[in-house]
Amino acid sequence: MDFRSDNTGGASPEIIAALAAESGRQDSAYGADVVSTRLERAFADFFERAVEIFPVATGTAANALSLAALAPGYGAIYAHPLAHIAQDEANAPEFFTGGAKLVAVPGVHGRIDAGQLRRQIADATPHGVHNAQPAAVSISQTTELGASYTPEAVAAIAAIAHDAGLALHMDGARLANALVHLGVTPADLTWRAGVDILSFGATKNGALGAEAIVVFDPARARALPFLRKRAGHLLSKQRFAAAQFEAYLAGELWRRNAAHANAMAAHLAKGLAEIPGVRLPHPVEGNALFPVLPARVAEALAQAGFLFRPWGDQASGMVRLIASFDTGVADIDRFIAVARAASGPA
Amino acid sequence: MDFRSDNTGGASPEIIAALAAESGRQDSAYGADVVSTRLERAFADFFERAVEIFPVATGTAANALSLAALAPGYGAIYAHPLAHIAQDEANAPEFFTGGAKLVAVPGVHGRIDAGQLRRQIADATPHGVHNAQPAAVSISQTTELGASYTPEAVAAIAAIAHDAGLALHMDGARLANALVHLGVTPADLTWRAGVDILSFGATKNGALGAEAIVVFDPARARALPFLRKRAGHLLSKQRFAAAQFEAYLAGELWRRNAAHANAMAAHLAKGLAEIPGVRLPHPVEGNALFPVLPARVAEALAQAGFLFRPWGDQASGMVRLIASFDTGVADIDRFIAVARAASGPA
Amino acid sequence: MDFRSDNTGGASPEIIAALAAESGRQDSAYGADVVSTRLERAFADFFERAVEIFPVATGTAANALSLAALAPGYGAIYAHPLAHIAQDEANAPEFFTGGAKLVAVPGVHGRIDAGQLRRQIADATPHGVHNAQPAAVSISQTTELGASYTPEAVAAIAAIAHDAGLALHMDGARLANALVHLGVTPADLTWRAGVDILSFGATKNGALGAEAIVVFDPARARALPFLRKRAGHLLSKQRFAAAQFEAYLAGELWRRNAAHANAMAAHLAKGLAEIPGVRLPHPVEGNALFPVLPARVAEALAQAGFLFRPWGDQASGMVRLIASFDTGVADIDRFIAVARAASGPA
Amino acid sequence: MDFRSDNTGGASPEIIAALAAESGRQDSAYGADVVSTRLERAFADFFERAVEIFPVATGTAANALSLAALAPGYGAIYAHPLAHIAQDEANAPEFFTGGAKLVAVPGVHGRIDAGQLRRQIADATPHGVHNAQPAAVSISQTTELGASYTPEAVAAIAAIAHDAGLALHMDGARLANALVHLGVTPADLTWRAGVDILSFGATKNGALGAEAIVVFDPARARALPFLRKRAGHLLSKQRFAAAQFEAYLAGELWRRNAAHANAMAAHLAKGLAEIPGVRLPHPVEGNALFPVLPARVAEALAQAGFLFRPWGDQASGMVRLIASFDTGVADIDRFIAVARAASGPA
Repeated sequence: MDFRSDNTGGASPEIIAALAAESGRQDSAYGADVVSTRLERAFADFFERAVEIFPVATGTAANALSLAALAPGYGAIYAHPLAHIAQDEANAPEFFTGGAKLVAVPGVHGRIDAGQLRRQIADATPHGVHNAQPAAVSISQTTELGASYTPEAVAAIAAIAHDAGLALHMDGARLANALVHLGVTPADLTWRAGVDILSFGATKNGALGAEAIVVFDPARARALPFLRKRAGHLLSKQRFAAAQFEAYLAGELWRRNAAHANAMAAHLAKGLAEIPGVRLPHPVEGNALFPVLPARVAEALAQAGFLFRPWGDQASGMVRLIASFDTGVADIDRFIAVARAASGPA
Repeated sequence: MDFRSDNTGGASPEIIAALAAESGRQDSAYGADVVSTRLERAFADFFERAVEIFPVATGTAANALSLAALAPGYGAIYAHPLAHIAQDEANAPEFFTGGAKLVAVPGVHGRIDAGQLRRQIADATPHGVHNAQPAAVSISQTTELGASYTPEAVAAIAAIAHDAGLALHMDGARLANALVHLGVTPADLTWRAGVDILSFGATKNGALGAEAIVVFDPARARALPFLRKRAGHLLSKQRFAAAQFEAYLAGELWRRNAAHANAMAAHLAKGLAEIPGVRLPHPVEGNALFPVLPARVAEALAQAGFLFRPWGDQASGMVRLIASFDTGVADIDRFIAVARAASGPA
Repeated sequence: MDFRSDNTGGASPEIIAALAAESGRQDSAYGADVVSTRLERAFADFFERAVEIFPVATGTAANALSLAALAPGYGAIYAHPLAHIAQDEANAPEFFTGGAKLVAVPGVHGRIDAGQLRRQIADATPHGVHNAQPAAVSISQTTELGASYTPEAVAAIAAIAHDAGLALHMDGARLANALVHLGVTPADLTWRAGVDILSFGATKNGALGAEAIVVFDPARARALPFLRKRAGHLLSKQRFAAAQFEAYLAGELWRRNAAHANAMAAHLAKGLAEIPGVRLPHPVEGNALFPVLPARVAEALAQAGFLFRPWGDQASGMVRLIASFDTGVADIDRFIAVARAASGPA
Repeated sequence: MDFRSDNTGGASPEIIAALAAESGRQDSAYGADVVSTRLERAFADFFERAVEIFPVATGTAANALSLAALAPGYGAIYAHPLAHIAQDEANAPEFFTGGAKLVAVPGVHGRIDAGQLRRQIADATPHGVHNAQPAAVSISQTTELGASYTPEAVAAIAAIAHDAGLALHMDGARLANALVHLGVTPADLTWRAGVDILSFGATKNGALGAEAIVVFDPARARALPFLRKRAGHLLSKQRFAAAQFEAYLAGELWRRNAAHANAMAAHLAKGLAEIPGVRLPHPVEGNALFPVLPARVAEALAQAGFLFRPWGDQASGMVRLIASFDTGVADIDRFIAVARAASGPA
């Protein structure tokens, strides 16, 4: 009954089992343990190439540390105005970078517009040293409005960024949902498309708390071990984060969980779309949907105990509904039923 | 066989059980869940008064955020030169405070000398605005050399700090070990003695990863919710950290674990003290000891597979040995036996 | 022939004379000198009330330090998207505040729209601690497009800011030009209208290099002495900055210089407005104008040796022309003549 | 009668004349002017090689910006515990670097001990990423206790720094005084001895306010233009700072002024040394001396109107006396006379 966020979910049994198995033994602190070492190989399999991984406590930390590796304090970071890094991280990117500026690049459905990005970078420094210096681009999978970037869309943005000497960061808090929706490989959607650094989230998709920075371009990440430590994100018993990731990748738990969440979101979208007066202005390309509900429908759902959030301009009637790995189909069906009943003649 | 750190331990079964119990349900993100709410009461019982608690991912974060609440960027923070915040946090305090300076206050066994502290604060600003402005004092329980501050010692330092308008922070990464050693209450060793903000650690003593900032003087902590979020330390599924703390406080798991670790350390100290050529220059007032070992003893122990760290000046022969909640007495006995054998006539 | 900026001007003879007079004597460093003391009285006369003044080296420093006194690192500062603090200070506000975010409030002619400001502040924190916290509003006199805010316009913005608990900063790099244009007193245009902190510039209007932070609400500025020093903006021989300000205020040099610059800008605007094909989309309410010139006119002026800058969207044909205290009327007349000649049939 | 600091001096007539000459013309802002261009050649002559120069407003800014170019936020900067950057800049180095730590390297007379430096760097990172990472060494000419480093002493420190991958910064607030005392060339005392970046001060030696960062290793300074701008230290009318430097270098004004100040200091030292009860524990190798005065002598001097500062431990009786380019010999003689009279039988 809770559609506010995939952060409200519990944790997959496989994750708990991995923690339990690891709890009975001692091992080196700060990532020098055998689980962290095995995890490097698991990630290499997942991405079809060697990568550097830096587990951290939260997605905000993964994003802000990634950006701090890419952008100096006098830099500019291009992102959608609705991006999580711009709206919902309490200035963490500015803090970690020492003052870099987030420059808004608009676009539909939370995706930045490539042409607009190109123009903004080209026009960024008419006054030279007086302007913030273009340093990085950040995109989100999925976006804050539930859309995904295809590998081609990522590649188009990466080309613009790289041509201008900027790095590309991907906030993959819901990367698994985008992968499942698009039916592409992790490699295709990230480094093969030009992503330099990835925030890879597992927390929203079945872990207790497991986020990692994945570095595809190690030359850009030389400072990351130090930046992570001084931010208090080098976990002393890192193996418990590594164990979560190991269980998340093993047997494709990530895919199963995301597939379920996406299916629930699609089911919900389909049901809502058939209700008169309900609109879905944004595509459902992951586990989130953003319907516009008539006021009486929204009220009826709230009274029935469903939890969800208004989104954006409050007068719009838009709400955010997010399905999780542990969302039940019965809850979806009941949500639709209540909405449909409320939409009829009053 | 691993005496390098209490960070190498596993996790108590009670902690794992609490996570498992929590994993099957949904609840609000970011600390608005029922476990976090219950935890406030549990902490109030533990400290015999209402407190504000801010779970974070690491002890470094707890320390640096606490100090950021207490000291401005132009401030001075007084701490022992060997303090963890001074030596082992990669400038996290400087980063989080926006540049505050750690001023070294010497003292024996890792404890700052109260008289010295008083003089240094009194002489801190001969040039006024040009000098770093005294803002906070930080002490560690237990210290980096294994000693504890008694409630009276804490109170003496708190009086000096408060008389000069400074706040007192306690790095309680091993607070449980100090409490057990001293046989005093949490209240007596913290707020009743004048501590304003506490970093309260559970990770080293049986948790997977659970640290919290405990605020006794809320007027000093108004910025903490914002500082924590922008540092990426507001955990989305905070209830899994809260659940660890709940299990840690319930039935005094903290005390049992710390008592075991302290007993192991004492047992080890007693055994080593009887070996010719071994010295123990620092008191054993928690779960850590810092013996000076003859070179051949240290070599024999290393060859026998024991893990431990040289400490301080490398020529001194001092090593650090830390017992954990899951250190076995058989390992201790074997350690002593190997050391004794190696100490005999070559 | 240089219309690029009022920063290209020289210095008034009165300013030089004051420096020369001061050069032959010794006095206390860091603002404890008699000139700085006298200056406090001169500023009190100028503003009709006691104020705190902090001379600094540049306008960027005055702005960034003012904002650092008003906004924490997790704060939001509302300003026009074209504001100097947003576009031309290389992230100085973010650096000095420790990461505060500049939030763009649009409006015509470089003035922020009061209604829009009110709405943005009201909608700023739907996600609470996750959002940047509204802290300050910053407006510019004159704006980046040459307009001035009337006392009533300032008061309207101040009311919105203060009602929401935010402080109001005014970037007065060209305050003198606005005062002359509006014919109001310094008090009316600043603190009586609700300005809390002012960046007061003299450099663009006849000084060598003299900027000051003027504090009307001392409760907000307690940290400023320390913030200034740690930013390297406490001048050791501050009396040479104070002497410039003293000469600037004495005999209303500020007014004479600004009146000349404004008159030159008005003369230039009048001449250009009569030329076919030239448009002036922004009002001329100070010493700057932003005409849209036909390409051949712009080329002819450049070939004739006039220096000026394209402004904004490069396809627009808009240029920025700024008159200074030492701009000669003959240069203006020649500029108009060249423009007129070039505008005729080719 | 003011011996508190060379910051209390006026300004040389040559400096004023240069400003007056420059005041009557217009030129490009922000260092694109002809004076700044000429100054590059003048500095190249002075240092016998091409250098990059960045004028800034204060010595604190020159130091902190230099260090920010050399050290990351997780870095360690080695300096004498009494260094200006450590004691008298209100945490500016920490602020500008984003949190780098100043590590104290002791030594006599304010000079860091080379052997001690070597050992501290070698032992700096026993815990790897947890420790501040050695990044730079900073030394002062002259030191905070009036001593100078010879070229050989600089070279010894530079070798240690460079061997360990660290850069060497020199705080040359009183470089002219050291040059005159040692009788060596600017090249010999700086880049030929291994200095990478220099804070070059003119303010204390006859300028109104003219400090510059001089870069000998441009690869280390790529960020400096941006760091300077965002710190508010890119002067809009930079040519007035450049004009001061031009006059300072022309005809060796720097040498004449420093020679006078040094001579006055030597004269004062000689006179005081002959007075019973007065000790001079530190060598006089520039324009500052640090005598220990009997209490009645200090009191008599204060009553006679002489201004000077107690220095260091207040019980020591040590004072700081600094001679300036405009210190008169009569004042020195009178100072000595008063001291001698007061030292006699009471």
